[in-house]
Amino acid sequence: LSIQRGYALFDFLRSVNSIPLFLPGHLDRFFGSADGLHLTVPYTRDQLGAVVQELIQRNGIDEAGIRLMLTGGSSPDTYHPTTPNLVITCLPVRTATNEDFEKGLRLITYEHQRELPHIKSINYLTGVWLQPLLRQQQADDVLYHSKGLVTELPRSNVFIVSKEGSLCTPAAGILHGITRKKVLELAGGLLPVEERAVALEEIYNSSEMFITSTTRRLLPVREVDGRLIGNGKPGSVTRELYRRFRELEEGLRAGGPDR
Amino acid sequence: LSIQRGYALFDFLRSVNSIPLFLPGHLDRFFGSADGLHLTVPYTRDQLGAVVQELIQRNGIDEAGIRLMLTGGSSPDTYHPTTPNLVITCLPVRTATNEDFEKGLRLITYEHQRELPHIKSINYLTGVWLQPLLRQQQADDVLYHSKGLVTELPRSNVFIVSKEGSLCTPAAGILHGITRKKVLELAGGLLPVEERAVALEEIYNSSEMFITSTTRRLLPVREVDGRLIGNGKPGSVTRELYRRFRELEEGLRAGGPDR
Repeated sequence: LSIQRGYALFDFLRSVNSIPLFLPGHLDRFFGSADGLHLTVPYTRDQLGAVVQELIQRNGIDEAGIRLMLTGGSSPDTYHPTTPNLVITCLPVRTATNEDFEKGLRLITYEHQRELPHIKSINYLTGVWLQPLLRQQQADDVLYHSKGLVTELPRSNVFIVSKEGSLCTPAAGILHGITRKKVLELAGGLLPVEERAVALEEIYNSSEMFITSTTRRLLPVREVDGRLIGNGKPGSVTRELYRRFRELEEGLRAGGPDR
Repeated sequence: LSIQRGYALFDFLRSVNSIPLFLPGHLDRFFGSADGLHLTVPYTRDQLGAVVQELIQRNGIDEAGIRLMLTGGSSPDTYHPTTPNLVITCLPVRTATNEDFEKGLRLITYEHQRELPHIKSINYLTGVWLQPLLRQQQADDVLYHSKGLVTELPRSNVFIVSKEGSLCTPAAGILHGITRKKVLELAGGLLPVEERAVALEEIYNSSEMFITSTTRRLLPVREVDGRLIGNGKPGSVTRELYRRFRELEEGLRAGGPDR
């Protein structure tokens, strides 16, 4: 049913020093997505966690990308879900570099609202379809908006530092990213945090802007629709949150697999 | 990329007496969908037509359902399309019966606009996701509407006979069905035909309503959101168009494979 009707969900996490990063959050979301699509995961949470650990060990990949996929199953009438198929893969993963961070991203905006956005389904039709436009506009990625409000990128969440000095990120119409959640935690004490509606107009005038994802961590946005954000360089809040995030990862490296 | 990002398209036709029904229209749409998704079909139109014919012959299935699928290919970064994969399957197909026609359908409506609706992509996320709701409401299918206008069903087009006695079918925000096109041709001379915006309110008060699809041909709608359409029985226009459509198919049966 994934091939015939695009009916499937997944989650994607990575390992640092063979330790799966934010595994509980990813498992929560995977089971939540399955529930949302009325599909049953044929294993318990603990079993899946153990499989992920074992895959990393047996493949001997310290820095791996682990993809958990659950499909609507083999459907005789090609429309009604049956017993889901579960596939878990473990491959080397490329993450954004410090150079990527310093360079920042050039975004364009596009009016679109993902279907069932809180579910991590395999539907990336519009995102993949937009790639020739991105190349033509020499943009790195696209920011979706709907009814005047920004939501997210196809594979990333978005944050701004508002004129008033708060860290703001959209709360509705989005996939709740695991890196997004961690960044909200890391921002505690640094500046006020607001999960709320963010108008498209507001982002053009934000003092800082960045995106978050599992493989990109935090990446500054230097330009949206040809307009510079701040001075086009990574801002101080973005830089501090990035530092805290890398520190958290380095802690896993230093602490070793026992940690 | 179909499994990982739902990036793929297809077309579906059936054969009558081993003759592929409306093959040129289906091939046109298949190539149009590929073009729309920026994918290249690795065969010519004539080659694909010949493969379809040969598949029907070699499988020995007179009344077959033929599915042509084109995916975004095997993508190393799991996001950017590469060389498309083409899969064509040929299996026995079940079509709607005269009994199905007499019974008619019970629909509910749901606000939704399919992404890239003119492209026959594999994205049926919302349609498949709605199935528990359909069961709960004891509905046979769902009619999508957006901004006050009806568009289509997940796998069918919709027609009404208006109060003024015209055959009306939405023109925008839809997949252009091959059966839909044939019905528009068959209606010539029978009554005025209008491809135009159809308001949700208008369908509740239509005198007849039916849906079209490759496997369902024409099926009357007897009820929408609990409201009876006409007297709940197949209307005279629907019945006449259905008769003409079946006659067209019987002509293929009588004429044999040479026709």
